[in-house]
Amino acid sequence: MSLDRMFYPDDVAVIGASNKKGKVGNAIMRSLKKKYSGEIYPVNLKEETILDIPAYPSIVDIDAPVDLAIIALPAKMVPDIVDQCGSAGVKNLIVVSAGFGEAGRNDLEREIKDKMDRHDMNLLGPNCLGILNTSTGLDTIFNPPDRQDRPPSGSIAFISQSGAFGAATLDWFSEAEIGLSKFVSYGNRIDIDEADLVDYLSTDEETDFIIIYMEGVKYGRRFFEAAKRCGKPMMAVKSGRTEEGASAATSHTASLAGRDKVYHGAFKQAGVIRARDIREMFNVAKAVSYQPVPRGDAIAIVTNGGGAGVMATDELVERGLSLASLSVETKKDLKEAVEEGVISEHATLDNPIDIVGDATPERYERTLKAVLDDENVDSVIVVILFQSPTLDERMVDVLDRVEKNKPVVVVAPGGRYTHKITAKIEDAGIPVYQTPAEGVQAVWGLSRCCPGSGGVRRTKDI
Amino acid sequence: MSLDRMFYPDDVAVIGASNKKGKVGNAIMRSLKKKYSGEIYPVNLKEETILDIPAYPSIVDIDAPVDLAIIALPAKMVPDIVDQCGSAGVKNLIVVSAGFGEAGRNDLEREIKDKMDRHDMNLLGPNCLGILNTSTGLDTIFNPPDRQDRPPSGSIAFISQSGAFGAATLDWFSEAEIGLSKFVSYGNRIDIDEADLVDYLSTDEETDFIIIYMEGVKYGRRFFEAAKRCGKPMMAVKSGRTEEGASAATSHTASLAGRDKVYHGAFKQAGVIRARDIREMFNVAKAVSYQPVPRGDAIAIVTNGGGAGVMATDELVERGLSLASLSVETKKDLKEAVEEGVISEHATLDNPIDIVGDATPERYERTLKAVLDDENVDSVIVVILFQSPTLDERMVDVLDRVEKNKPVVVVAPGGRYTHKITAKIEDAGIPVYQTPAEGVQAVWGLSRCCPGSGGVRRTKDI
Repeated sequence: MSLDRMFYPDDVAVIGASNKKGKVGNAIMRSLKKKYSGEIYPVNLKEETILDIPAYPSIVDIDAPVDLAIIALPAKMVPDIVDQCGSAGVKNLIVVSAGFGEAGRNDLEREIKDKMDRHDMNLLGPNCLGILNTSTGLDTIFNPPDRQDRPPSGSIAFISQSGAFGAATLDWFSEAEIGLSKFVSYGNRIDIDEADLVDYLSTDEETDFIIIYMEGVKYGRRFFEAAKRCGKPMMAVKSGRTEEGASAATSHTASLAGRDKVYHGAFKQAGVIRARDIREMFNVAKAVSYQPVPRGDAIAIVTNGGGAGVMATDELVERGLSLASLSVETKKDLKEAVEEGVISEHATLDNPIDIVGDATPERYERTLKAVLDDENVDSVIVVILFQSPTLDERMVDVLDRVEKNKPVVVVAPGGRYTHKITAKIEDAGIPVYQTPAEGVQAVWGLSRCCPGSGGVRRTKDI
Repeated sequence: MSLDRMFYPDDVAVIGASNKKGKVGNAIMRSLKKKYSGEIYPVNLKEETILDIPAYPSIVDIDAPVDLAIIALPAKMVPDIVDQCGSAGVKNLIVVSAGFGEAGRNDLEREIKDKMDRHDMNLLGPNCLGILNTSTGLDTIFNPPDRQDRPPSGSIAFISQSGAFGAATLDWFSEAEIGLSKFVSYGNRIDIDEADLVDYLSTDEETDFIIIYMEGVKYGRRFFEAAKRCGKPMMAVKSGRTEEGASAATSHTASLAGRDKVYHGAFKQAGVIRARDIREMFNVAKAVSYQPVPRGDAIAIVTNGGGAGVMATDELVERGLSLASLSVETKKDLKEAVEEGVISEHATLDNPIDIVGDATPERYERTLKAVLDDENVDSVIVVILFQSPTLDERMVDVLDRVEKNKPVVVVAPGGRYTHKITAKIEDAGIPVYQTPAEGVQAVWGLSRCCPGSGGVRRTKDI
């Protein structure tokens, strides 16, 4: 059955809606009331209104078709509620309640499965945060917004097996203004699993890039086939890499984490980018949400510090990217700039291009123009050590002004002054990283999205 | 010759001191005037005073013994100045000027060497930032403090082959309030090299931990013998790992980066911790500057999110640390806490300890107390997902209150609310990291400092 009404419901019922602050059913009502554009039907046995919205004693009392019911009631009540929803003709359910398989109550999950099958329904969860759809304001996350921000709209979909970690990541993405199309926390996946979500998101027009955090998939073959046919770049963080980690995963999700080597091979075969950890995942997500996809993996580095250029080169080579060979024209242009006195005679005019410690904004601009015009260059890493007294806020204009027909990322290690300026560079749409290795992670992720990379295919530009 | 007067001069001369803003000799004068506790003698041919301090036309005109001369004049003038310093009896020189070997002028370096040898002097540089000694205010770094902050006093010495990268790191350390004893940028090392600096710092009472960034050492055997006899934990970041990176290093420092495998083995043999990149170096430095050294490498993880516990476990195992086996008493204590209702019945009481999503500050406190009392536990990683509505600022008090006889680091991924609270946790002396992998890097670095680790030996606690 299609998940379209699950992600784009015209109306939702909140079963277990509450006026009592601190209750899950109150937090969800608040989130929905704040932004959700559809109709909201709170369901509560005793109250007449919830947050001033008329309430219904039961789902069957609502005299309209309900696209989606969100269930926030104690686990033991859920099977009956699922049955009631079925009778009321509701086809899509999100069960946020915990206390099921992860707490040893597989019996309750079986009961729910039975009722669902009888009524032909879709169910997300239980033990999950549900869905955030940034374009409609559908938001079933029970963490209050003052604790956990919601990210802006964008074209990345983020799927997380872990609700708590998913929420932390959303919060981090929000602070960095990384835009999302959808967030999905799917919990114990007694019905909708990773493969269903990838299939759905592959057809979602608002999604161009899919990130998934997992400890293990429910059905390996099903998931990897969905990943293969997805047609959009995907990145996975899979934990439970070690025996001890996998064992910890089993105890908290009641699911097997699976052998890491098998996953590793399968990710590769399906063209899924594997991020080693969540910092790397974050760095790539930021690049994808700010920058276009390059045509290839030839990288130019421009730096005012030789050491940082060396570090970036190491990381780049180790990740299988290539140092772009600058064209004859570019080399000629840079030499002319030296003759004109724009670029220092001490500069290294080969890639990595070191325009040395006394580089000015003008010198950066001239060098960046040459490199961005070079057909041999697919992406550019600009290292800027703002500790140098010859640099200042004019670098923001320089980066804003150069034609960015290719991905550009900035690496600017530093403290207070640096961060004051880099905030403005990010406002201008160029992602900034604290270390050379992280800047390289960013272009690596972008390069893995390009059609010629042999990895992920891409249907349209972000 | 001892470097003591180089690092602790009673007075300094600044040759090339200037009243003109933007000049290197002006920036150094400003830095010294601001904090340096000794006598300052500006040397300038034309001016009567520099920053209102009486100036001398030449070093030979100063009618007092000068411990250290800082030379900030064009490269071609330096050999003669070195000679003059020799005649004036100055035994320690820092040459910050560039334009020597790195610019193809090895002849100037040879000239300087000749003069130095004649007068029996120590020379740091050329092409360097020189020295920052946080305890005396000696500060020869020409980057203005509004561009590059100076870190607080502490017990870490940081040596950097790259001046620009060293400055960026100082700036980053300052923002994170990582305390340093000394910073040394040694540039082209025509006299004082890495081995000399390690030897000196091994005897420096204010230094307990040595970090070095390098692309390659001058004399391999000399350096690694100094590292072996050093007696204090050392951490190195060595770039130029790849052929391409090494080649870039050669072009910017005019020195060979050397084979990475040889370095890798030598670091291991000498007991030097090798950080893979500067983020890892930063993470370890922060841990070392905030926390004590553990007795061993058995780690306990306490978390309110299972996924984060899995990620920390993976990283920990992959780094060769061990998951502590909780003692019978701890397990009993935690079980009692469940019976008393302090810890949820859904919690996982084995390491990694998952006190689940609705954990309160009280639950953290009880769990942390049990774990910190456990003799089988050497360090504790506390994962706190502050997105949960059951947590709040009281976590700061909890972390402040528990007895920290062992290293404790916090992992708190998140955004605005999280960072508001974690700033207070860091004020209380506990380092906070954004990802589980980084929290593990921190305890890994600390564990590598402990006497039983087979790695670095340690003379005293930080």
